[in-house]
Amino acid sequence: MKLKKEIYLLLTFVLLSFAGQAEDGYDLWLRYKTIENQAVLDNYRAQISGYVVEGYSPTLEAIKTELNNGLSRLLDKPIAFGSPFGKTGWIIAGTPEGSSIVAGLNLTEELKSVGQEGYLISNRKVRGINALVIAANSEVGVLYGTFHLLRLIQTHQPLDNEFTITDSPKIQHRILNHWDNLDQTVERGYAGFSLWKWHLLPGYIDPRYVDYARACASIGINGTAITNVNAKAVVLTPMYLEKVKALADVFRPYGLKVYLTARFSAPIEIGGLETADPLDPKVRQWWKDKVTEIMTYVPDFGGFTVKANSEGQPGPQNYGRSHADGANMLADAVAPHGGIVMWRAFVYSNEQPVDRAKQAYDEFKPLDGTFRKNVMVQVKNGAIDFQPREPFHPLFGAMPKTPIMAEFQITQEYLGQATNLCYLAPLFKETLDADTYAKGPNPTPSQSLKAPDLRNPRPTDRPPVPASQVEPVRVATVAKVVDGTLDGQAISGIAGVTNIGNDRNWTGHPFHQANWFAFGRLAWNHELSSAHIANEWLKMTFTNDPTFVETMRGMMLTSRETVVNYSTPLGLHHIMGAGHHYGPGPWVSKMSRADWTSVYYHKADSAGIGFDRTATGSNALEQYAPLAAKVWADPKTCPDIDLLWFHHLPWDFKMKSGKTLWDEIALHYQQGVDEVRQMQQKWKEQEAIVDKERWDHVNMLLSIQEQEAVWWRNSCLLYFQTFSKRPLPKGVEKSDKTLEYYMDLKFPYAPGRG
Amino acid sequence: MKLKKEIYLLLTFVLLSFAGQAEDGYDLWLRYKTIENQAVLDNYRAQISGYVVEGYSPTLEAIKTELNNGLSRLLDKPIAFGSPFGKTGWIIAGTPEGSSIVAGLNLTEELKSVGQEGYLISNRKVRGINALVIAANSEVGVLYGTFHLLRLIQTHQPLDNEFTITDSPKIQHRILNHWDNLDQTVERGYAGFSLWKWHLLPGYIDPRYVDYARACASIGINGTAITNVNAKAVVLTPMYLEKVKALADVFRPYGLKVYLTARFSAPIEIGGLETADPLDPKVRQWWKDKVTEIMTYVPDFGGFTVKANSEGQPGPQNYGRSHADGANMLADAVAPHGGIVMWRAFVYSNEQPVDRAKQAYDEFKPLDGTFRKNVMVQVKNGAIDFQPREPFHPLFGAMPKTPIMAEFQITQEYLGQATNLCYLAPLFKETLDADTYAKGPNPTPSQSLKAPDLRNPRPTDRPPVPASQVEPVRVATVAKVVDGTLDGQAISGIAGVTNIGNDRNWTGHPFHQANWFAFGRLAWNHELSSAHIANEWLKMTFTNDPTFVETMRGMMLTSRETVVNYSTPLGLHHIMGAGHHYGPGPWVSKMSRADWTSVYYHKADSAGIGFDRTATGSNALEQYAPLAAKVWADPKTCPDIDLLWFHHLPWDFKMKSGKTLWDEIALHYQQGVDEVRQMQQKWKEQEAIVDKERWDHVNMLLSIQEQEAVWWRNSCLLYFQTFSKRPLPKGVEKSDKTLEYYMDLKFPYAPGRG
Repeated sequence: MKLKKEIYLLLTFVLLSFAGQAEDGYDLWLRYKTIENQAVLDNYRAQISGYVVEGYSPTLEAIKTELNNGLSRLLDKPIAFGSPFGKTGWIIAGTPEGSSIVAGLNLTEELKSVGQEGYLISNRKVRGINALVIAANSEVGVLYGTFHLLRLIQTHQPLDNEFTITDSPKIQHRILNHWDNLDQTVERGYAGFSLWKWHLLPGYIDPRYVDYARACASIGINGTAITNVNAKAVVLTPMYLEKVKALADVFRPYGLKVYLTARFSAPIEIGGLETADPLDPKVRQWWKDKVTEIMTYVPDFGGFTVKANSEGQPGPQNYGRSHADGANMLADAVAPHGGIVMWRAFVYSNEQPVDRAKQAYDEFKPLDGTFRKNVMVQVKNGAIDFQPREPFHPLFGAMPKTPIMAEFQITQEYLGQATNLCYLAPLFKETLDADTYAKGPNPTPSQSLKAPDLRNPRPTDRPPVPASQVEPVRVATVAKVVDGTLDGQAISGIAGVTNIGNDRNWTGHPFHQANWFAFGRLAWNHELSSAHIANEWLKMTFTNDPTFVETMRGMMLTSRETVVNYSTPLGLHHIMGAGHHYGPGPWVSKMSRADWTSVYYHKADSAGIGFDRTATGSNALEQYAPLAAKVWADPKTCPDIDLLWFHHLPWDFKMKSGKTLWDEIALHYQQGVDEVRQMQQKWKEQEAIVDKERWDHVNMLLSIQEQEAVWWRNSCLLYFQTFSKRPLPKGVEKSDKTLEYYMDLKFPYAPGRG
Repeated sequence: MKLKKEIYLLLTFVLLSFAGQAEDGYDLWLRYKTIENQAVLDNYRAQISGYVVEGYSPTLEAIKTELNNGLSRLLDKPIAFGSPFGKTGWIIAGTPEGSSIVAGLNLTEELKSVGQEGYLISNRKVRGINALVIAANSEVGVLYGTFHLLRLIQTHQPLDNEFTITDSPKIQHRILNHWDNLDQTVERGYAGFSLWKWHLLPGYIDPRYVDYARACASIGINGTAITNVNAKAVVLTPMYLEKVKALADVFRPYGLKVYLTARFSAPIEIGGLETADPLDPKVRQWWKDKVTEIMTYVPDFGGFTVKANSEGQPGPQNYGRSHADGANMLADAVAPHGGIVMWRAFVYSNEQPVDRAKQAYDEFKPLDGTFRKNVMVQVKNGAIDFQPREPFHPLFGAMPKTPIMAEFQITQEYLGQATNLCYLAPLFKETLDADTYAKGPNPTPSQSLKAPDLRNPRPTDRPPVPASQVEPVRVATVAKVVDGTLDGQAISGIAGVTNIGNDRNWTGHPFHQANWFAFGRLAWNHELSSAHIANEWLKMTFTNDPTFVETMRGMMLTSRETVVNYSTPLGLHHIMGAGHHYGPGPWVSKMSRADWTSVYYHKADSAGIGFDRTATGSNALEQYAPLAAKVWADPKTCPDIDLLWFHHLPWDFKMKSGKTLWDEIALHYQQGVDEVRQMQQKWKEQEAIVDKERWDHVNMLLSIQEQEAVWWRNSCLLYFQTFSKRPLPKGVEKSDKTLEYYMDLKFPYAPGRG
């Protein structure tokens, strides 16, 4: 008995003694943990002794800090700063203009191709000694290159041999949209509350603002619209412009421009005018004066993101004017200052009896060619609303005379919100890689409308294609619309609705950090594969351990399809809980607008299920280029993943698998649940590899996800079964609760309602 | 030129290289930073080699973790755990019941005096070796003793000689009140949002919950009412009780009991009854059943905090019943499970034409003796509402047959909210030390109604008075009412409305941590001086550097009077902005209830200013014991600090200083501003001593405080000047803005509205 106690005491001692510092996820992918592989560490240590950055500016200081902190932590040694001469293994970072050493390298020709934001990283002899050169045409380009070099080290890429990397962004405006309200609530936010402590600005500058800007710059994000698209005019008043200025001052060194959301009725609400008619000269002058005023606070103010005449927001149509009239008025106000207007195409009207999926196209397509040069039309990836899967928006490729931005949702409003592990790069890529056929047939057979094999993403984990080697445009992908190359647009942009909040780890779920990361990486280079990005993120955020990286990459790549399976398989969409959008709600039928219900979208009845968007139905299909529409038009050729998006089909419809539609639906829901359980198992296998804090965190959330997957499966199958009247196929677990139980669940305080 | 650049590079190197880990304040006063004074460190290192805690339980594990982490960090060496025999300098912690070593020390007699929560710390020989013994009658007592020992080391107290400390709490129920809503907003919260992630409970347990419980236990807090007094019934439904259970399970090992706020109309809202009449048998049964149900989730559930028939909340008066009827019904429901009911006396009615300051007394005094034994009446420190200064509440001492809890507000609703450095211990002490004269004249002359000299707090920085040496009751102080000794109450309690939110450092302003700390320390032992508590907090939170501690202690001790000076000097009260209570609003006159306006309270007119609460006015004074009232009754004897609370006086009233009332008012406002500027100067002197992160943080907030002090001074003087028609006395700065400017300021998104 006594011996037993002593052993116990000893064991406790061991456990207590090894409790290290908490890994709370705050550092994101900029964790800079010392390299654990001794050979790799020794090699880098031999190659890097110090760095030199000539000159002084806020951006150059940010570069120095990042190199010092990053390298000293990764290599666990002091990193010298100063003159490189007489030593080996120095990093030289700068622009030819600001650094005499960089100027002496004669890189003018090589730097021509990388533009204002790109950079060159090269391992070469400089004045006889080995040097890693980071050179760019702008200081921000050098900062981007600095993060690239650190990423190479974080992911254990060899730096031994002579090499030259050139890289530059494919899209000009890479922008986060914060749906953050002035009371710090976040519409569709699931990671706490807003980072912006409006009440304490400008007097108190939270150090976190700097880390936000660092994180954005590290993945190439160069703009942030800091206020909700459901906007308040008060942000345009002096009291708030002082606060905006304070944020912009923090972000500027990191190349991060500030944008605001413009409430269309602001001239009335804060300007004392009687109208906000965009053709009224007083209104036009008010906006011009307002922008001039904003510029006195934020000299590099980027412009406006606008949600107008959508979901109750005011807009030009209140005055019988078009979206172009509204956008052009604001564009004229910002143009003298180099600003842009991002005018959202997410418009639909309850009064319109037309399929909601069609309304944005109907509204905007006729306006093609009528917008000012500094207007971009910002189009959601799909025509409904950030569903787990949507076919690409028909506006992509339909407005060749207008720069079209893509708007993705990084926050998981419909993909499991706070609790579901769901890697979104495959979703982003699915849209970006989709072929619009806007230019007719492709010279080579297109792959884009075959159902993508999501279980087998591109196996290649290839490095970014250097800008100089970009292949000629062969297909009219959504990406080519967005980056502007398809029709030679002068400007281009991409927006992501952020998942960032004041949770300590920024995104709530530790794996949701990967979606912020993936958005930024794809905004910079949409040709990167989902697997490549997952690899980078896993190595930078957790460990380079190959088993861990491989297992987790596999889990991440299939995770989005898993969410689709247990929530909205086979083209189902918009069947979530009302208002908060948390959990299943296929029964939702009573809302103030029909197109906010679930029954509007799934149309389940005794005959079958699905939304007929072919010529026999809403004919949303006709908004696509004929070649794109063709495959979807026929339920026999339509990929399973989009089937019920385009077709209302009988419960006994025979699927490609040979099974009935009802059985396939049920089996997909079960498969989603099974896959979550596999994820749980895979995560449990990583317990020894991952720090306790983050392992526990993800483990708890996977348990919640499993419960929520079961909740979705049971709710949807019980509900749809009231129409199908068919038994569950073999292998599908029966619900232990009744449909009434699920329908009675209420979540009055679910987050994110904004 | 070249030389200059090289020097610059070198300088930058030095600056960058010494960037350490961020001090973000998360660790509170449990920072456990390694002792910097080498002699002190060496001494402790020689005295402490390891520790032994026999047995296993969640509380014992908490003790082990705290000893290991605390000692290993403070002493920067591994701390051994296990058998002490054959070594010197061991800490032995445990109860006689659970530890054979402690049992062998024969402490039964010594432990008798410390009760269930107290402890003994003793430096003595155990089996021939030097040992620091922490012994108690319960495991939680040992935990409290552990934190005490760590505090001794954190504050560099000598442990060399043989000594014995016994300590135990003077008040039984030491409770935090969280005005936290289920959507994570916090009513009157200025440090972010609620800690409780309701939506993710019970599946996700934030590790922060543990650190919250640790912090509470470290200062002796043993209860937490986790929901807003403006309560929602839904928290009593199974979905939420599962979440409450999860929190209670985390808190239990730290001796922290969970309480809930009861919405009086819950039987209707979630029980399906048609009434909530406390005398209705069905209602009484519903509450009994509900408590039994709660107990299945939380077996040690503590009971209810109730706000009823106050500010629109439902209550027994809706059914013609008394507060006692309501409280007793709930008391009967919790009594079989050992629970208590804390029934708030903060009631007032707009329909009542009576001075709001009088209404709680009028309502509750007649009910004395009618409450169940497990009911406490919870009384705010003053009769209005947590003003910067209020005379003690007349209910203290007025209900000898009822246990009276004191309710203090730790969150600074009226004392500068998020941004003003204001140490509240002097405010708490002012009330606790006030003499109610409830038992007639004191045998010795009382000091309590002289104006306390707040510039010279007790110079003695004496250690806690051991429980065995408590002096006999000589005066009927509020503290003696609250701790129950005045009338021999069977139970006692004190509540503090917390200032805790999800800001990284818990309280927003780094110095607001001191108010959480001070509340806990005073709840445990109200005889501690404000200076003693400030000393402890400063040393534990920042450094033992004597210059720093002395300067900052001085600044803290005067800081509350500074806020009074620039906001509500000379007994002025309730003249803040409407609704959000942010900043000045002496002009507020149009609200839905008269007693929510400012003009109701200051009553400024051409004749003078102040609220006549003497016999010629509302006669609130008659609610106090005659001896207490006497000094206040006459403006000539009434202390300046309470003057306008009790008297309406002419602008030219001659003050004790010889100056006119108007001049004194103006000079106090100016003095407040001047004192903030002195605080700024004192803080700047600490720049080299304090880590950069916290220094910057406080420095920025002091700048805001200076601006807000000027805002208060200008607004109030400009406004009152419209009545006084007198010039500002010499030395008072003239406002650079107009009264209209200040009156036009709007803060639609000021935090804390709940």
